[in-house]
This record gives sequence, C-alpha cells and structure tokens, in this order.
Amino acid sequence: MDTTILERVCASIVPLDSALLDQARERLNRLTKPIGSLGRLETLAAQYVAMTGELMPPIPASLVVVMAADHGIAAEGVSAYPACVTRQMVQNFLRGGAAITVLARRVGATLWVVDMGVAAELGDPPGLITNKIGPGTKNFRYQPAMTRTQALAAIESGIALAQKAWEQGARLLAIGEMGIGNTTASAAIAAAMTGQPVREVTGHGTGIDAGTWERKVQLIEQALQRHRPDPRDPIDILGKVGGFEIGGLAGVILGAAARRMPVVLDGFITGASALLAVGFNPSCRAYLFASHRSVERGHEVILRHLDLDPLLDLDLRLGEGTGACLAINLIQAAIALYTGMATFDEAGVDGPVDSTMTSSFDS
Amino acid sequence: MDTTILERVCASIVPLDSALLDQARERLNRLTKPIGSLGRLETLAAQYVAMTGELMPPIPASLVVVMAADHGIAAEGVSAYPACVTRQMVQNFLRGGAAITVLARRVGATLWVVDMGVAAELGDPPGLITNKIGPGTKNFRYQPAMTRTQALAAIESGIALAQKAWEQGARLLAIGEMGIGNTTASAAIAAAMTGQPVREVTGHGTGIDAGTWERKVQLIEQALQRHRPDPRDPIDILGKVGGFEIGGLAGVILGAAARRMPVVLDGFITGASALLAVGFNPSCRAYLFASHRSVERGHEVILRHLDLDPLLDLDLRLGEGTGACLAINLIQAAIALYTGMATFDEAGVDGPVDSTMTSSFDS
Repeated sequence: MDTTILERVCASIVPLDSALLDQARERLNRLTKPIGSLGRLETLAAQYVAMTGELMPPIPASLVVVMAADHGIAAEGVSAYPACVTRQMVQNFLRGGAAITVLARRVGATLWVVDMGVAAELGDPPGLITNKIGPGTKNFRYQPAMTRTQALAAIESGIALAQKAWEQGARLLAIGEMGIGNTTASAAIAAAMTGQPVREVTGHGTGIDAGTWERKVQLIEQALQRHRPDPRDPIDILGKVGGFEIGGLAGVILGAAARRMPVVLDGFITGASALLAVGFNPSCRAYLFASHRSVERGHEVILRHLDLDPLLDLDLRLGEGTGACLAINLIQAAIALYTGMATFDEAGVDGPVDSTMTSSFDS
Repeated sequence: MDTTILERVCASIVPLDSALLDQARERLNRLTKPIGSLGRLETLAAQYVAMTGELMPPIPASLVVVMAADHGIAAEGVSAYPACVTRQMVQNFLRGGAAITVLARRVGATLWVVDMGVAAELGDPPGLITNKIGPGTKNFRYQPAMTRTQALAAIESGIALAQKAWEQGARLLAIGEMGIGNTTASAAIAAAMTGQPVREVTGHGTGIDAGTWERKVQLIEQALQRHRPDPRDPIDILGKVGGFEIGGLAGVILGAAARRMPVVLDGFITGASALLAVGFNPSCRAYLFASHRSVERGHEVILRHLDLDPLLDLDLRLGEGTGACLAINLIQAAIALYTGMATFDEAGVDGPVDSTMTSSFDS
C-alpha cells in the first residue's frame, strides 16, 4: 500500500482545541492592557495555544526548512535566471551568504537546507540534507513532471522531515524554497487546485516582460489541457505539473500538523504546497500562519482560498522562506506577551471606570 | 536665553546623506537576490545608512524610552480608565509585567522608563528616571496645561536624554508613552499642528462610547478656541494643550536627530510628539521610522502629515512603545541582510539571462 504513511498522517490531524482557544482568550483579557489592544498579536497567541494544546507554552524553538529542486519547465525560458542558479543558491545558503541564512541566524532558528531534486551533484557539504527524488523534474510542457511514485516519495520525505524536526525539539516551523522555474509549477498547481484561471494566478510583475508572461500563461494552460490533473487528487496534480520541493513542503505541512506543530508559510510557492496539503486534509489549514503578502500575483488568490490573513506586507518577493522567518519574531513575541505579562490582579492595576469602556488606557 | 539649547540642537540637524543613500542602494543591487526583491527591507537599510552616515553599520544597539505623565484633562472623564492607572502602569513597567517590558526584553533593547510628571510620588525604584516637570498638567479646559517654561523644560529634558542614550551606546531609539488622558492632548496637538478638524484626529472606536467621544471632541474644540495656540510655535501648542511626556518625546526626537540616531515612532501619541519636533525643524523627519498603523483614528492623519509609511499593520492600540519595539526587529533584520549577505561576485552566482529581467529567481 503506497499511500499508507500519507493516509496515516492525514488521519491523525486533529481540529484545533476550541476550549483552549477560549481559555487563552480569557487569559489575554486579564492581562494589564485594554482588552484587544494588542490586536493581531492576541489572535496569534491564542491560535498558537489552540494549535499546540499547551495553555502556557514556552517560547517555541523555531526551525526553517528550505527545500530546493530544479524544474524541467525552466527550459522553456519562463524564468529571468538560468537554471544553474538553483544549485548556486543552495551553495550560497550553506555558506551563509543568502538572505534566508542571515535571517535564520538573526531569529535564532535552525536552518535545514534540503536537496529535493537539484539537477547537479552537490556532494555532501555540511548542513545539506539530501532527499533527492530525481535530478529535477521533467518538462511538463511535454510530459508529466514526475511519476506518481516520485510525487508520493516527495510528500512522504517531507512528512519524515517534519517528524525529525519535532523529535529534535522544534516547535515552530517556517518553510521556504529555491528552484528556478518554480513559480510556473506553482501557478499550474494553484490553477488546478482552486479552479481559478491561469492568468489570475500567474506572476507578472516580477521581472519577466509582458511577452514572456504571456508565453508562461499559455504554457501552463496547454499543460493543464494536456495532462488534465484531477482537482480532487493532489498527488495527480503534483505529479503532472508540480515540483519536488513543492511536494516535499506539502509533506512538511502535513507532518507538522499531525504533531500539532504550527507552520509559517512564506510566499507564493509555499502557498501552492499548502493548497496541496489542504487538498489531502482540510484540517491541516488550522496549523498554518501566513507570514506575508507577496508581490507575486497569484499569492492573493492562494491566501483567499486558504482563508489566511498575512501578518506582514513589506513588498517581499524573494522566497527562500525570508518572509516566514520575519514572522517567527512576531509569533514568538505574541507568545512572550501572552505568558510573560502580568494580569491586572497580579500587578495591582485598576480596570476601567465603566466596564463597558475597556479598550484604551489613553483615550 | 531660554531657547538656547533647543535652538542649538535644531540648528545641528543635517539632511540625509544622499550620496550614501545611492551607495547603499548600489550595494543592495549586488547582493544575491533579484533586484528589489527584499522590498521595504531594502529601503529600510538604505535609509538607516543615510541617516547614520555609516556605509557598513553594525547591528544597532536599541533603546526604548517610555515617558509617563498625568493629564489634568483626565478629570473631564475623557478616558475609560481612572487617572491612577498612569502610576500603576509605571510600576508595572518597572516590575516587568507590562507589554513593553516583555517586548523590550525579547528584542534585547534597553528600557528607560521616565517619570515626566506622574501625579504621585514614585520614590526611587530601580530603573526609573525621574525628570518630573510637574505633578501632572493642569486641566486645559480651564487653563493652559503648563507654563511656557515647563514646556521648554520638558523638551530640553528629552534632548538631554537622547544625548545620554547616544553616549551609552544606543544607535536606534524606540519611543513610547503612558498617560491617562494623553490621546486627548495628542488630538489637540494634532489639530493645532495640521489644521485638520478636531473630529478627524480624535480617537473614537478605542473604548469610549459615542457620547464620551462627542464630549471629548467638544472639549478639545473649546480648548483650542479658548487658548488659540500659534500653529507656528510648537512650544505654545505644547504649553496650552500638551503633556509633559509628549514634550519630552519631541525633545528625544530632536536630540536623536542631532546625533543622526534614528527614532522609531509608536502610535498616535508619539506621532503628536513628532509633529511638534518637525514643527521645530522639518529636517528631523528624515530620522524617523513609523513602526505601525494604529487603530486610533487620528494616527493616519499624522502619518500623512509626516509623509511616513508604517511598517506594520497589526491592529495595535496599546501604546507604551509596543509597536515601535516590534519594528526594531525589522530594522535590525534589514541591516543584517544589507551587511551580511554575499554579493553575486562573492558567491559565484549567475545574474539574470537577460539583464532587463532582473527581479525574480523564481518566475
């Protein structure tokens, strides 16, 4: 039974603990601040409590999983950069010169760089996890990007990685990716999973000119017509138009949700992974935080489909997990406030004069 | 000559170094990422360089200055909380149970709590800086909030504090406040400085009911008619309808700008301080970062007047410097990326295939 691990993990994902959500909100209302005045930080803290099942959680140790892979579709000239940049950037991650390396260090997060299918031998450099499903996908203009077996292997390798992260003490995951051509694969997945028109989910303003963008849209439309992926079967979609890193990250989401470990999404590509994961089991959505609103066009469509409201809006469009890493700070701050602030009783601070007016010290 | 220190500080504020701004942008374009893909983090880093005059600055040591004072206008019932909460919250800051204490600790910032005029003897608890200008302001419904001498003293004490922060190694200031009644004073200042109608700058949805809000608006309108503060004279405005902590923070901004030390604003009240500071010398605006968009109604008017675009939008309305403290993380991350990332040359990463398409690895 090929799907046993995946099925078992999906079956073990539980809904949020709504009783704990209420208890967390009740504590938030007793802290020395006007009710609700910490805005979305209060929501974040309560969600984290309900996700993890711990009423007074420690500040979570965080881990960033960046998965990299190459894409056959890159041969069609849909990217501004040559395909060799995937390999070069993985090496840059490992040497510490990339944006995600700098940010992970600043936020005190462990960084795992995973080769899910870079089209080059990377050897065994320190810090690299090699889960290579293949030497890049096939060009899905002409054939399925990968076999069904490979798609399942990519997902299950992500599930195993999330479990390993949990065992090593991580309690908050951020995910990111690197792969020349992967917005094309992600747009195809987003169109197939959401039913939105390809041009609504395909990035435009991010560096390719209008002509290249039109060709990218047509390539995706033709591929979807050719392969007809089944919208109720995420493995079919991943296999036909996806990527190894996208499948791997879908597995990370499922594996984390099964452990009640929250996952911070980055931008468009990690959003496509989340669409796949939610396609397997909608309950995993409750374990996701959206870190930022990317400039990439289709990201908004994905966020709407997932019903997630991003924390940051900083015009980022780099990927790698950079936005997710920035959001770790906010989530940890929210938990620190929730567990570290004094209550009105503890601090001996008076409440509002009139209990119907409870929301600002200053007004 | 009463105004000598203030005048000297104002005269020593220099415009941003535009040559350094260009050099910083040029470096950002050589880092291993598509040009502009780090969005507002790139702008932040370049601004910080131009503010400080250092092309390769270290991650700045940060310091949060929270000033507290009482307000005579609170006797009119314009706040949801009793006036004694100012004192109680200052004690909560010092004991570590308040939101700003928790956040300052998380971000590794030094926290200075300053009594600018709390209407109670606080004694000499560890961590409190006592710069008491008076035991709270007068009720500006009937008389000026403070004398011109007090207004000047508040500002100059803030200037001195910024200089002390610099001498002790701080290179990035965040400012916050506590004072029951201080959104009323801030709304009066905002109306006087910007010329906007009082009801456009007066908070509404933050906990007082519609009737209390109407009374708050009328009180401010009547006070402005009675005292007729001169919009070209920030000392006059501060003296007639301001607050000790608001004047002190205006001084902190001026003193920091004179040292080329950036200041991160918090919400509405620190925004009113910035209006005053910019009234003394418009050049100090270049040293300000807006941390977040507050729920408080008049904040948007202030941000527009200052031409500042906030970094965060998290529905915060607590004050204390909480939003500013969160933004310290983003500013430090931006500088870490700017100085810590490898360039394309250093990392041996290829640039775009076609140099007209330079803005995404992934498209």
